[in-house]
Amino acid sequence: MSDKRKILVQLDTDVHPSVFDRVVAIDAGVEELFSYGGVKPEQVQGLVHGAIFTRGPAELKRTALFVGGSDVAAGERLLAEVRKHMLPQFGLSVSVLLDANGANTTAAAAVRAAARHGDLKGTTAIVLGGTGPVGQRVALLLAREGAKVRVGSRQQEKAAQVCERLKARIPDADLEPVAAGDPANVRTAIEGRSLVIAAGAAGAVLLTKADRKDCSSLRTLIDLSAVPPLGIEGIEIGDKGKERDGIVCYGAIGVGGTKMKIHRAAVARLFESNDQVLDAEEVYALGQGL
Amino acid sequence: MSDKRKILVQLDTDVHPSVFDRVVAIDAGVEELFSYGGVKPEQVQGLVHGAIFTRGPAELKRTALFVGGSDVAAGERLLAEVRKHMLPQFGLSVSVLLDANGANTTAAAAVRAAARHGDLKGTTAIVLGGTGPVGQRVALLLAREGAKVRVGSRQQEKAAQVCERLKARIPDADLEPVAAGDPANVRTAIEGRSLVIAAGAAGAVLLTKADRKDCSSLRTLIDLSAVPPLGIEGIEIGDKGKERDGIVCYGAIGVGGTKMKIHRAAVARLFESNDQVLDAEEVYALGQGL
Amino acid sequence: MSDKRKILVQLDTDVHPSVFDRVVAIDAGVEELFSYGGVKPEQVQGLVHGAIFTRGPAELKRTALFVGGSDVAAGERLLAEVRKHMLPQFGLSVSVLLDANGANTTAAAAVRAAARHGDLKGTTAIVLGGTGPVGQRVALLLAREGAKVRVGSRQQEKAAQVCERLKARIPDADLEPVAAGDPANVRTAIEGRSLVIAAGAAGAVLLTKADRKDCSSLRTLIDLSAVPPLGIEGIEIGDKGKERDGIVCYGAIGVGGTKMKIHRAAVARLFESNDQVLDAEEVYALGQGL
Repeated sequence: MSDKRKILVQLDTDVHPSVFDRVVAIDAGVEELFSYGGVKPEQVQGLVHGAIFTRGPAELKRTALFVGGSDVAAGERLLAEVRKHMLPQFGLSVSVLLDANGANTTAAAAVRAAARHGDLKGTTAIVLGGTGPVGQRVALLLAREGAKVRVGSRQQEKAAQVCERLKARIPDADLEPVAAGDPANVRTAIEGRSLVIAAGAAGAVLLTKADRKDCSSLRTLIDLSAVPPLGIEGIEIGDKGKERDGIVCYGAIGVGGTKMKIHRAAVARLFESNDQVLDAEEVYALGQGL
Repeated sequence: MSDKRKILVQLDTDVHPSVFDRVVAIDAGVEELFSYGGVKPEQVQGLVHGAIFTRGPAELKRTALFVGGSDVAAGERLLAEVRKHMLPQFGLSVSVLLDANGANTTAAAAVRAAARHGDLKGTTAIVLGGTGPVGQRVALLLAREGAKVRVGSRQQEKAAQVCERLKARIPDADLEPVAAGDPANVRTAIEGRSLVIAAGAAGAVLLTKADRKDCSSLRTLIDLSAVPPLGIEGIEIGDKGKERDGIVCYGAIGVGGTKMKIHRAAVARLFESNDQVLDAEEVYALGQGL
Repeated sequence: MSDKRKILVQLDTDVHPSVFDRVVAIDAGVEELFSYGGVKPEQVQGLVHGAIFTRGPAELKRTALFVGGSDVAAGERLLAEVRKHMLPQFGLSVSVLLDANGANTTAAAAVRAAARHGDLKGTTAIVLGGTGPVGQRVALLLAREGAKVRVGSRQQEKAAQVCERLKARIPDADLEPVAAGDPANVRTAIEGRSLVIAAGAAGAVLLTKADRKDCSSLRTLIDLSAVPPLGIEGIEIGDKGKERDGIVCYGAIGVGGTKMKIHRAAVARLFESNDQVLDAEEVYALGQGL
């Protein structure tokens, strides 16, 4: 029956399920939204079984799951648990989208913004704050597109671990861990890079004007911090492809319109089949042509 | 886009968000109801931001907030917090209605009932239980309408504080604090009053038949207690303009029909623009012409 | 007004209200679903009053309650509390369905399955796990249909208590408590029985192949366990009227289709009037003719 109502089950790790994600779900065409807050991994089995055991296999694409909450690592644990309890071998599964803290849609929108200003294949890029949930996703997407990616972190050791994990997924990726935590090493880190994407913690300035003033290779700067001071000094939060001293700049709000479109498209896509897992790469692919 | 679905975000301070408020919201035309229970002030920012950052400014009037719960003071704290996190300077706000414990709609309906039986301007009134959340609102509305208002309380000191706060809002108000806690002082308190509105705690008898039998000025008695014994002895909960010994009487259920109409109208009004704060006076104004 | 939206208030004793019950409610035609988790008996009054005090008596059949959760006894306590706070004497009530842990719909579907293979009147039956919530309901329904029912339990004393309670409700019922906990007594217990319904705890094997191989009276075996090993050895969970060695067999999934139909029909039935209490027998009656 194609007329079953479209149900989205929102599993949120925060006490109160995100209003933001709920509004987007409704605006994406969800007809019934079942919202759960404070969801713990051990509660996932019952919630997933309730979703997959109620409608026939042919109708299961009208039910879907969304995993959210402000803690991306907690969301990832829920997603792993969700996948464990699907029974695809019996046709009993529903599609699921992870967008905890907006990490996947933000990373996708940032890389989409960069792609507007030149082919990413072969582009020299650096991700500052590259070991956080958004930064890792940005690095993954850039590597998939064939960019040469430096993953920057205050602790080079952590950056190296991220690069290793990414190389395990993309064997031919061009990835390099770099230390980028103080003026001395951040200047070295951005040397020769044309694209910088900053995905650090709120309030942490990762790249000052002084530190980048002598770097002639810079072409595009994207900062994903939502609250001042931003991660890249000199960018404004509303910048959307704005040229500043010959460099194209984006701030979080400038990237936000694309992020929202991708988020809505990803929710809508869930209802096209009952076997999708939409994580960073799938969400990014959705952004194509929006 | 005028076709975005009408979303009401219900912030309730009780563990379980009020079924009553939810049914009224649906019957008032809300299309998507996001209900939150046990909401604390420190959680309000994220919820408000989720509401204001998801739709464009032109569409934000299709999203609104409702603050409820059985504790009116707690609801008032949430409302204050809600207002703090709107960003009207950027057009980023949504309208909000406070009706914790039905205080605003009940007070509005009570004063509307009184107004049916004579111009309130110059009317001599007394509000028994006048320092509670409903009583204070009744006194405010009566004062706005130009009535001469005595605010009665067991503790005259608390009544005096309420009168002071109201005079700060309505400088030309005719307000007088009175002690009204035992037969001796309640008889003095109602002397010369034509309108009595009792808004005391459940089960507290504030005015006995004996205490009012010698008061010849009484014309209208309104009691807002939902459970017997009522605050004004001799009134029945279903009284709706019923004459008893030449005095027009209203009980809580008699006022209830108007209260429900005002409640529904207030919820519907939220979706007319994105910048309203509907508290006692705005809710009362809505009752005009219903 | 016949166009008020159909509201179902779901009271669930588990922390997270059942996704399963929510999907079924939507698929049964519910238009607005208010879901509450972790509901405690002392919270029921406010929730019920919110449901019955918001719409006029003529419209109250468009509001209904559902009591669920994995703990059937806890659900029964909620149902008792729900009934206490209705005010049918004033026309102020809404219909309510109990289906905690699917107990009523499962029991109804099991007995419906048995009825497909011969008149239940006079049938010799035994309910294994007959003192649990599903087992008691199965015994009740079989007794109502005029079957001769043995109630089996590891502890015969508990089986005797169940039989006594059922006889108080159905004075002419033919009920007999039996001990059925080990090979010696289970063989005696099933002697002469043509119908066995097993409703024991998950993972408990109540009847082995060896224990039933010499029992020539067996005609129908129904097992309601959802996880292997099943309660009746030799049945498969998907069996749906499958003949095995001349005996008709049903497993939990085989009974599941009818269970779902009954569940949906019961939810839909709630909205036909505002005075129904749908427990085991009412739910079973609904299954007639589905």
